[in-house]
Amino acid sequence: MEKAIILLSGGLDSTTVLALANEKQYELYALTVKYGQRHIFEIDTFGGSALTAAIAVPKDLYPAGGHEKIPVTYVPARNTIFLSLALAWAETIPAYNIFIGVNALDYSGYPDCRPEFIAAFEKLANYATRLGTEEHKQITIHTPLISMSKSEIITTGMSIGVDYSLTHSCYDPNINGTSCGHCDACILRLKGFRDAGLTDPLQYQE
Amino acid sequence: MEKAIILLSGGLDSTTVLALANEKQYELYALTVKYGQRHIFEIDTFGGSALTAAIAVPKDLYPAGGHEKIPVTYVPARNTIFLSLALAWAETIPAYNIFIGVNALDYSGYPDCRPEFIAAFEKLANYATRLGTEEHKQITIHTPLISMSKSEIITTGMSIGVDYSLTHSCYDPNINGTSCGHCDACILRLKGFRDAGLTDPLQYQE
Repeated sequence: MEKAIILLSGGLDSTTVLALANEKQYELYALTVKYGQRHIFEIDTFGGSALTAAIAVPKDLYPAGGHEKIPVTYVPARNTIFLSLALAWAETIPAYNIFIGVNALDYSGYPDCRPEFIAAFEKLANYATRLGTEEHKQITIHTPLISMSKSEIITTGMSIGVDYSLTHSCYDPNINGTSCGHCDACILRLKGFRDAGLTDPLQYQE
Repeated sequence: MEKAIILLSGGLDSTTVLALANEKQYELYALTVKYGQRHIFEIDTFGGSALTAAIAVPKDLYPAGGHEKIPVTYVPARNTIFLSLALAWAETIPAYNIFIGVNALDYSGYPDCRPEFIAAFEKLANYATRLGTEEHKQITIHTPLISMSKSEIITTGMSIGVDYSLTHSCYDPNINGTSCGHCDACILRLKGFRDAGLTDPLQYQE
């Protein structure tokens, strides 16, 4: 069995990616990064985003408000850091496969979700490591969701048994974990289920 | 004044880089990563190296033993992770310049010190970030030591006032901080001072 690292946030996309990698018979190594906890990294390293700093999470902006600019929920260099940590673990195991759940909806807004970024990281990965230089094998960054809409992701996940009641997407949950229903992530998720003709099993605030 | 992030370990090379960036009138932002502390990252992420795991640090191997292979002190994907963290901070400040003290001696052994790796990271950085995509400015990875020998680095540093008694290089210091004198880092450092016709101000174990 070939080994694969899966970047897993516990959200809808990465959970679907985990299920897809499992379907392809990889031996799975899930990596979750707690990037909101400032003690993990240098203070300010992950600043400058509504997901980590003292900037209000925008509500009810998508799709009405559009995404002409990169949204304030963009976290500087997040996927570069996540993929770098995955790469380090890949080299240690070793594994030649890294899965990340970026998709078309994300790369309209986030620079580090674009196919060009993924291609550049894959190239870097093979320069950066012993795996890429000594053993004449290539490290591959897998992005099975990259061209899927949210409803396609949900439909795909349901078809292979993903239980979306165990996933979580909200950028701004209340204290008991209930989703807000109004941040970009909630709106995209709810629209995805609606477009797929399905009902989101999660609880939302009234 | 243009801002620059300096990856600073406190060793001879990165301290010299800091001094060089200071000479060039950058506003300095030093970033130190405590990668030996396993609580910082996912356990095992930084495993697989004599610098972090339960592998003995090799002694008296350089230059007699040679470096035909990547040394066991290589830390998987270290510079990729360091540069990624620097990139995140760069985007937050913002800064368009990142300095890292890789050099010719390193890239004979470590894949993530080679010029090809640095070029690939610079390309990635500009795909990965808002800085690289929105403002039509380029992020530059500066490697002022890349073609210098250790003695050239020391001579350069001395000429601009670096106090090397405040730097530390040993991979395996004893409990009071005295350098071992026998690991690769100590041997390279001592040889560098000797080749430069200078005496290392550090204390070494008898």
